[in-house]
Formats: sequence, structure tokens, C-alpha cells
Amino acid sequence: MSKSEIGLLGLGTMGAALALNIADNGFDIAVYNRTARVTQDFKATAGDLAPRITATETLEDFVASLKSPRAIILMVPAGEAVDQQIAALRPLLDDNDLIIDAGNANFHDTNRRAEAAGDKPFLGIGVSGGEEGARFGPSIMGGGNKASWDRVAHILTAISAKHDGTPCATWMGEQGAGHFVKAVHNGIEYADMQMIAEVYGILRDGMGLDNAAIAAVFDRWNTGPLASYLIEISARVAEAKDTDTGRPLLDIITDAAGQKGTGRWTAIEAQHLGAPVPAIEAAVAARNLSAARDLRQTGEDIFGGAPQALNGALTVDQLEQALIAGKIICYAQGFTMISGASEQFGWNLPLPEIAKVWRAGCIIRSVMLDDMATALSEDPDKNLMFASTFAGNLKATHGALRAVVAQAALHGLAVPALSSGLAYFDTMRTHRGTANMLQGQRDYFGRHGFERLDREGKGFHGPWAN
Amino acid sequence: MSKSEIGLLGLGTMGAALALNIADNGFDIAVYNRTARVTQDFKATAGDLAPRITATETLEDFVASLKSPRAIILMVPAGEAVDQQIAALRPLLDDNDLIIDAGNANFHDTNRRAEAAGDKPFLGIGVSGGEEGARFGPSIMGGGNKASWDRVAHILTAISAKHDGTPCATWMGEQGAGHFVKAVHNGIEYADMQMIAEVYGILRDGMGLDNAAIAAVFDRWNTGPLASYLIEISARVAEAKDTDTGRPLLDIITDAAGQKGTGRWTAIEAQHLGAPVPAIEAAVAARNLSAARDLRQTGEDIFGGAPQALNGALTVDQLEQALIAGKIICYAQGFTMISGASEQFGWNLPLPEIAKVWRAGCIIRSVMLDDMATALSEDPDKNLMFASTFAGNLKATHGALRAVVAQAALHGLAVPALSSGLAYFDTMRTHRGTANMLQGQRDYFGRHGFERLDREGKGFHGPWAN
Repeated sequence: MSKSEIGLLGLGTMGAALALNIADNGFDIAVYNRTARVTQDFKATAGDLAPRITATETLEDFVASLKSPRAIILMVPAGEAVDQQIAALRPLLDDNDLIIDAGNANFHDTNRRAEAAGDKPFLGIGVSGGEEGARFGPSIMGGGNKASWDRVAHILTAISAKHDGTPCATWMGEQGAGHFVKAVHNGIEYADMQMIAEVYGILRDGMGLDNAAIAAVFDRWNTGPLASYLIEISARVAEAKDTDTGRPLLDIITDAAGQKGTGRWTAIEAQHLGAPVPAIEAAVAARNLSAARDLRQTGEDIFGGAPQALNGALTVDQLEQALIAGKIICYAQGFTMISGASEQFGWNLPLPEIAKVWRAGCIIRSVMLDDMATALSEDPDKNLMFASTFAGNLKATHGALRAVVAQAALHGLAVPALSSGLAYFDTMRTHRGTANMLQGQRDYFGRHGFERLDREGKGFHGPWAN
Repeated sequence: MSKSEIGLLGLGTMGAALALNIADNGFDIAVYNRTARVTQDFKATAGDLAPRITATETLEDFVASLKSPRAIILMVPAGEAVDQQIAALRPLLDDNDLIIDAGNANFHDTNRRAEAAGDKPFLGIGVSGGEEGARFGPSIMGGGNKASWDRVAHILTAISAKHDGTPCATWMGEQGAGHFVKAVHNGIEYADMQMIAEVYGILRDGMGLDNAAIAAVFDRWNTGPLASYLIEISARVAEAKDTDTGRPLLDIITDAAGQKGTGRWTAIEAQHLGAPVPAIEAAVAARNLSAARDLRQTGEDIFGGAPQALNGALTVDQLEQALIAGKIICYAQGFTMISGASEQFGWNLPLPEIAKVWRAGCIIRSVMLDDMATALSEDPDKNLMFASTFAGNLKATHGALRAVVAQAALHGLAVPALSSGLAYFDTMRTHRGTANMLQGQRDYFGRHGFERLDREGKGFHGPWAN
């Protein structure tokens, strides 16, 4: 039996999909799962692809079935399971065999594992796009030693999503850089979804549109600057009917959002980096608060009357413009966070390549990311809001964002992400801010000192008696 | 020479002030500092209090000068220095001698140190109020073993601030509970200051008031529901003149705020707890963005024209009402975070006592905290926004908060904390939210499943083809 070019360990939903994708692209692959029956079932249902798949039942057979130098993809739950599998595999491997963690690792863990691997090849790659992406073309964000990436790049680019023929698989930088970029992707995903949900709320409660009309709005937007996977599926969700009752699905889904924690990770890392991502923070908070349905009922009982109808105070076109502005601002925050990490960790992360790798395969894919790739290629150091294309877009749309935030405020429609986006934009377009008051207060109560506009130096103090 | 009742190690600004406070309250105290000259100078300048102070020059003499069982306050920089001092002291101490970390420790470190101490008495206490508070009466939040607290409670209550005669020194709970409460205090402080700065910006840029007029506004507010140390000092800051140039101080202070990280800690812990504190997040973000003065200049060059004059669209009274509403919402977030920690860590934190301990001595002291103590005593499990006094206040003021957020949005005045507060309020007063859209999207792209309003159970799916 000829040996396989690559191995994959862990045949859960994502692992199985990725293995089929690899076989489908013409690579012989050996697979292994802790439970042997899962491995057998996987091969038995692989159809035409079965001849390319070697199902193994022991870790030793799995390793023995791979061409040397070996390359093994781990697709096991993030956390201890990864460390355990690495520990189990390493004694069976040669020093130049490559382990690739393709799970949803925290990038700090990937940093640690890369350190621990020393000279032994190790990659941590972020894989985005869910089961369908994994099966037919995900977005792949690689991290680790570049030479190791180059050994498997032909496979990873082959299985990745393509945007106008360009593979969405890129090496981002050393160590945990790939998993870091994936985390920010997920944070942006939270914020993008939240802004859409806020606009959905205005369409529903402020404008009184039914689900079919809301679906039509999203479908129309999906032909313009907002065209994206998330807008597209929002239309599908809005038009869907429950198969049992025939009722509009959105009307029966409970308004309590789950989360697997990746948005929270991003928010926490942004705090550590000192790179604000208020839109992501707002989205994480909104999911947390959504779970408190009883408390929100109490709030409605006490205060009543929210949200209120807009009675024509806003147009659907203004909502579209506001969402365009909010989206630009939100992505600017995400890219700024990536810049901060790049500097702090010495990763030299390629911002234009990140925008490119997100153009297909992943959840946040959109036409706007294509323009972002262009804008960031032209000036990778510029805040996205200030790059010429997007500065132009914002000039055209921030008025609508103002109108939406203002009318939402007046009518009790909660828009935490959109309003945080506007505050971020206004903060970043105002040279003379209000932090002089903060510095005055801090010097008054804690003698923290301040800088002066009219002099060089630090540690000036006010004439306080205390 | 008679032995001292308590010892204090670390004669920096805060330590020296606290030692004088202890002596001033009639307790004999032994002090020690790594640099002997600092200790000598401290005693030499202690004036009338010198007879109560025993200056020691070695750790052995310091320990020997204390009554047994001993109690030693550490006032050294948070972090490794604390661990080093504990390690240096413990071999010199008896098993029932008490070490009290009164520095600005991360509560996780205090948890760890309490664990490590085992049966040996250890307390972690948060001390708020800056140098002046430490000298003349701080707010003291204690954590650790209750029996250990009781041994020194007579000293800590004696030196603490008093509110109508009630000492602002309370045992909060086991381990790091005291330092945790102190961290949330600092987070609330960030948010409270930020909301004041936002209102200052509207008075200055939206209404065109000069510094003297702004000081008069804050002075007037300080006689009403907003009466607080922070409003009081905002008036002092606004009226202050630079002693060199005679110019209004606020006009020369650079609008770039510093931070020592405690607001960030609070935001990160809130993320871990899943207890949103968007007002604190907005305040931390505002400080970070304030530092990017060049970038904000670029933004102003590109977009121009912000902020704009309000031309009478808001009144000063509306600003006062909005700040009342914003403050209630912000404190509700802080107390909700404390509730979350209390539950998660099994601390049984006394919310009314926390409000009481903040009524004097600390930076956020205010008359409103007195009403909060009452409201939380009546119903400690209730969200502060829904407790009857504050529900009444919010009913009277949320309209003004809406007007301020709306007009700020329309006129380019950045109000990140106030607008996040309004979004939080509107989210928590709306029973039917918009997270059903998020759940629909999540089920569509990731088969995450959703709950239904019309049926029990979890893991329902939409009729997606994928």
C-alpha cells in the first residue's frame, strides 16, 4: 500500500469535512480517530473519495501510513486535547515531521506549543467557514515557521476557498499569528452580525416591516456595497418558515444568543493590546444581555413603551448607509487591533493579505473586503477609515449613521454597536478631545501629572491646595 | 521599649500616609522601608506623631518590635514585590501572625496568596482615596479570613473615612474579595469620569461655554442629585488657572489621558464573568484613543467640521438629567458585575455594604451612593435600574439622556459612555430583543441550534438546504 501525503487526526464534523476536501483535491490522506468505528464509518461513507483515504486504527499505523517527512493535521477540540495528542504523537515521529493544529486554539496556546516544539516543525492554522467551508473551501490563516508552511502550502492552497482564482490561504506570521488573525475574524463576525441584528430590529419595530419585507430589504442590499455572506443569509433567515407550524421562523426563535467565547477572547486580547474594539465589545455584551430574558421582561414592565415606531423618521436607504458606515468603522477597529498585535508580538502581519484571505470561504466574506484589500495594499499603515476609498464612503454615509443613532435613541431602539461605532468615528475625527478634563481630575485626586499643549515635558501639576 | 500594635512595611506615598493615619488614631506603629534613610526621614518629619512611631532598620528588628500575635501591613508595589516581601517575612513570623496586603493587587494574585498562606492569617485589602484618603480616612474593602479581619477591624475602622459616623471599612468576603471590589470601584471611577468628560465636551464645544461658566455649572450640579467628589473637583479643575501663564488650566492640559490599568483589569474580568460593563469599556477605549492625537488630527483634516455647535438644541438641565441617568446605568453595570463575581466565586458579597463603604473616603463618593445603599438593602438581588428609587429617577431622566445622545450624534460630539449607557438601558427594557436574528444566522452557518418561544427544549434547526 502506498503511503499518504498527509494525515488527519480527529474526524469530528470539521475534521471529516476537511479530510474529504483534501481527498477531493487529489491528495492521498490517512485518517485516524480515537474511536475506530468513527474512522471506519468515515471511509465507508466517503464514496468516490474512499480510494484516496487510508483509515487507520492505531496511532502507530496512522504514523506508519504517512510519507516521510510526515505532515499531520490535528482537528481535535481546542485545549488539553491538543496537548495530549501532541504528546502522544511526538514519540512516534521523526524530528522533522510536521504537526499542524487546525483547531480553534487560543493563540497564546499556539505560541506556547510553538515554543515547546523548538526545532520540530509545528504550525497553528485558523480554518474559517464552518462545515461547508471545511468541505468545499475554507479561509485558512497560517501561523508558525514559514518553511513548515511552505512544505504543505500546495495542499492548503488547493483545498482553500478561491476569490477570482486567488486561494484564500496565507501564512500570516510566526507562532500563533494564524490563530490570532482567526480570533479577530471571529470578533469582527460578532460585530457584523450584531449591527445587522440592530438594523433588523429597526426594520421590525421601528418601521413595522414583516419578515418577508425584511428579507426583501436584505436581498436588495446584497446587490450593493453591503453584499456579503452575512447579509445574504440574513435574507434567508428572514424569509424562512418553520416546517412544522408554517410560521415565520424569526418569530419563533428565542431572542437569546449563544456564544462559544471567541468574541470574548477577542475583546480580552484587545484590552491587553490597548487597541479598542468597541463594536466587538458591544456585540459580546448584547449576546450576554440577550440571555437575561426575565430581567428584560421586568425592565419592560417597569418602563414600558420601548421600542417605539419611527413614523417615517428614517428611511430604509438611510439604514443601508448607516450599516455601510458602521461596517467600515468596525473593520477599521479589527484591523487596528491586528496592527497593534503585529507590533507588540513582532509578527509583521500583512494587513492586505488578511483582507484578501477573508474575501472567500469565511463567514465575513464580502465585496467590501475586496476594496479593503486594495486600500490596505496602497497604505498598510493607515487606519482604514482614513484610506481614501473608505474615507470617501464614510463622508457619504456618516450622516445617515448619525440619523439612525439619533432616531434610535429617541425611539428606544437599542443600537449598541452602531452607536459605539459612531462615537469611535467622532472621537477619531476630533483633534481636540475631552481627555484634558480626565487629566485634570487625575492630577487633582492623585497627582498623576499631565502634559501641556504649550510646553515640552511631562508631569506638570495644577495649583491644587491638597 | 514597648512593642507596637501594628507594623507597616513600605513607606512610599500611600504607605507613609497610612502610617501617619494609624498613629494619628492613637495606635503605636512600627515601620520599615527597604531604604533605611526613608524610614528615618519619615519619623523625623512625623512631628507630634513621632512618639507613636517605631522606626526600624532591619526586617528582624521590625518583626521584633511588634506585639504578638503580630499584624503587618504591606504597602509595596503590586506584583512580585508583594510575593518577595511575604517570602522574606514569613520565616521571621509565628504561624498566627497576620500579613495584610494593602496595595493595589490584582485579586487573582490575592486569591493565590491566600491559598498559599493556608492556615497562616492573610488579608488583602483595597484602600481607596489616594494619598489624602490614606492620610485622613480612606475607604477600605477587606478580603480574606473573617477571623483575621476581626483581629484588626478596630484599627481599620478607626483610620477609615466616616459617613455620618459610620466607618467606611468592611469585610467583603474570602480571599481576593476586597481587591476585587476595589477593582470594580476603579472601573466605575473610569466610567463616571468619562461621562463627566463627555458632558464637559458638550458644554464646551456644543454650547460654547467658557471654563468659568463650566465650573459654575459643575458647582451648581454639586448641590443636587449629582453631588459627588468627582463633580466637585471637575469644578475646581475647570476654574483653575495656570500659575505661570494665568491661562485657564483646562485649555493648556493635553487631551491625552493616562491610565494605570485598573479600568482595563475590570473590563477584562467582566468579560470573563460574562457580566457586561459597556460604560467602563467605553471609558477605557476613550483613554486609549485619546493618546492617538496625531491620528485624530488626521481624522479632523479628512472629515472636518466636528464637533458642531448645538445652537440651543440642548439645555444645561437636560445635560444634568442625562448625567444622572447615565450614572445610574453605569453603577447598575458595576453592581451587576459584583453580583456575577459573588455567584461565580462563592463570595456572598454584600452589595448594600459595598455601596455604604463607597459613600466616603474614595474617589467615587457621592450622595447617590447613599440612596444606592438603601435601594440595595431593600432588595440586594435587584438590578439597580429596577429598584424603586432608581427606576423612578430613570423614568424622570431617560428622556433627557435620549435627547443628549441624539443631539450629540447629530452634531458630531463623541459620547461613547453615555450612548453605551442608553443602549444598555434600552436593551434591558425590551423584552423581545433582536438576538433571534443572531440565532438564526448562527444556525444557518454553523448549525448551532436555537430555542423556540413556542416549545420547550434546545437545539432546534431551521429548514436550511445546506
